[in-house]
Amino acid sequence: MSVLTSQGNSLSHRLEADLVQVRRLFAEELDSDLACVNDLAGHAQRYHGKMLRPMLVLMTAMAVQPTGRRTGHKHLVAAAVVEMVHMATLVHDDVLDDAAMRRRGATINHLHGNEAAVMLGDYLISHAYHLCSSLDNPAVSRMIAHVTDTVCEGELLQLANRHHLQLDEPTYFTIITRKTASLCGACCRVAAELGGCRRDVADALFDYGQTLGIAFQIIDDVLDLTGDQATVGKTLGQDLAKGKLTLPLIHALSTRGEAGRRELVGLLQAQGDAGLSQEQAREGARRVRDVLSSGQSLDYAREKAVSLVNRAKTGLVENLQDTPARAYLLGLADSVVTRRL
Amino acid sequence: MSVLTSQGNSLSHRLEADLVQVRRLFAEELDSDLACVNDLAGHAQRYHGKMLRPMLVLMTAMAVQPTGRRTGHKHLVAAAVVEMVHMATLVHDDVLDDAAMRRRGATINHLHGNEAAVMLGDYLISHAYHLCSSLDNPAVSRMIAHVTDTVCEGELLQLANRHHLQLDEPTYFTIITRKTASLCGACCRVAAELGGCRRDVADALFDYGQTLGIAFQIIDDVLDLTGDQATVGKTLGQDLAKGKLTLPLIHALSTRGEAGRRELVGLLQAQGDAGLSQEQAREGARRVRDVLSSGQSLDYAREKAVSLVNRAKTGLVENLQDTPARAYLLGLADSVVTRRL
Repeated sequence: MSVLTSQGNSLSHRLEADLVQVRRLFAEELDSDLACVNDLAGHAQRYHGKMLRPMLVLMTAMAVQPTGRRTGHKHLVAAAVVEMVHMATLVHDDVLDDAAMRRRGATINHLHGNEAAVMLGDYLISHAYHLCSSLDNPAVSRMIAHVTDTVCEGELLQLANRHHLQLDEPTYFTIITRKTASLCGACCRVAAELGGCRRDVADALFDYGQTLGIAFQIIDDVLDLTGDQATVGKTLGQDLAKGKLTLPLIHALSTRGEAGRRELVGLLQAQGDAGLSQEQAREGARRVRDVLSSGQSLDYAREKAVSLVNRAKTGLVENLQDTPARAYLLGLADSVVTRRL
Repeated sequence: MSVLTSQGNSLSHRLEADLVQVRRLFAEELDSDLACVNDLAGHAQRYHGKMLRPMLVLMTAMAVQPTGRRTGHKHLVAAAVVEMVHMATLVHDDVLDDAAMRRRGATINHLHGNEAAVMLGDYLISHAYHLCSSLDNPAVSRMIAHVTDTVCEGELLQLANRHHLQLDEPTYFTIITRKTASLCGACCRVAAELGGCRRDVADALFDYGQTLGIAFQIIDDVLDLTGDQATVGKTLGQDLAKGKLTLPLIHALSTRGEAGRRELVGLLQAQGDAGLSQEQAREGARRVRDVLSSGQSLDYAREKAVSLVNRAKTGLVENLQDTPARAYLLGLADSVVTRRL
């Protein structure tokens, strides 16, 4: 997710240096006197990926202090906290999805069993709150706890709607807003809080982050249907296997005629069969993809993501001064829809 | 777990009234705008049991303000927080243990699947931190996050030692101190913090709670081997089925001669076979119990618990004024080793 511009070059170097510190804080926080804990937590650290959420914290922090003052220790801590929250959700997601691959490596549940993965997720979320409490800032503690409440609600709503072929767009958007986008919004709100922003600016920054997060999840769902597993680096096709309806499917089911709809429902029901061989699952996914592609349902989802990104950018331009950090955040929003992984 | 004394009668009524408020705060905190979330969270509320941890918070709070001032809203909130932390660990424990019964009812994992149980546990722990952050007290937020770090370490250490027949007493005590007793200690420390206690008194109260918690877990482990499932109200024999060595077994394995040890190891390995019928598991558990009983291993564990309870009581007497609340806490400690459920 490179959003380098000539103008933002030194900013990118600063961000890179900050992210190194974030990873260090992350590792230090998880360090235990028990070897078995360190072994497992060490494995989780291979999950660091694009670090979108820490980037949102750090860049928002820079954007709201246009004097160019360096981000301080508290911003690095907050960035490590949101990364830890995110990683906890990844670890438990992989348990829920029976996923075998993540960040080009085996998942914790695949390597060490679901039980270790459940406990590791708990360990990560606990340390996220612990590290957060070291900020000694009750407002930030409330924001982080509030957003994890929301993330769980999104996950539970998604779980309650598995194999629900009448799932509508509003419910889909509620699910992804809560399970994914709320955390992106919180990243920006936390940075605004630490930067002492006015409430209306904090709200606008939250809206930027959350809108970008919705677009991010739409593209994630499109990639689960169309991506190349080797490129994306995680198990794909899980949404079909787990009966999760995403935007292209919802679009196709609501726009195709009765016969086309019946055909697609049949394909989806077949994909949900746990007894499918890998080969059968791949072939079924290809047929679903062809249906979605011919009906412009993939384009519909991508265009929705693009329009959300544009909305996020407009909000940012209206509320922040023009600085290299703001330019970076605008580029970051674009990269959400152009990414291939 | 009745510890009523004539002296403590009015205190017990006050505690009962407080616990009603704690359950109300608990329910209010979990309330969501999503029906599917409320359905699941409502089920979890049937898990309220002895409420030992809220009792520790509330009674410690009363004991450190000997003027008899009523416990305030912050104590009720803290009591609801520790109950929520505890319930989150129960829900995830039942996933780890494949347990089917809890508090005389079906477990969440049994009713709704492991996925819903993982997410419900996450929802509970998230709301515990959220409710805690409403106290606006960074010291308490740190204590709660620190103790959940510790609980996870205990669980991970236990997981790493499943089917480890050479498990020694020090490691067993590390496991139960972290996974169970640390939270009981934290209940007392949080109450001491909210009551503005001196550091040495807070440390002594923590020690009382933690020592009581170790005794509590030893008895829990003994009940898993000897209890009547209908009385205890949860799935028993899980420790044997999941290869968890507890104090009576560790004692027996280290005190029996070579032949006796081999016999017991054989029995334990047979109990770990996932293919056992209920009847075979019950019969195997009975034979293990007979071995532990004849070798005084059950008595050894019970006596250890009694001696820990006595240590906890001594610490309390040395550090707190003689009040009805202190008497209640002394009785609470005794009840930990006399309980049958």
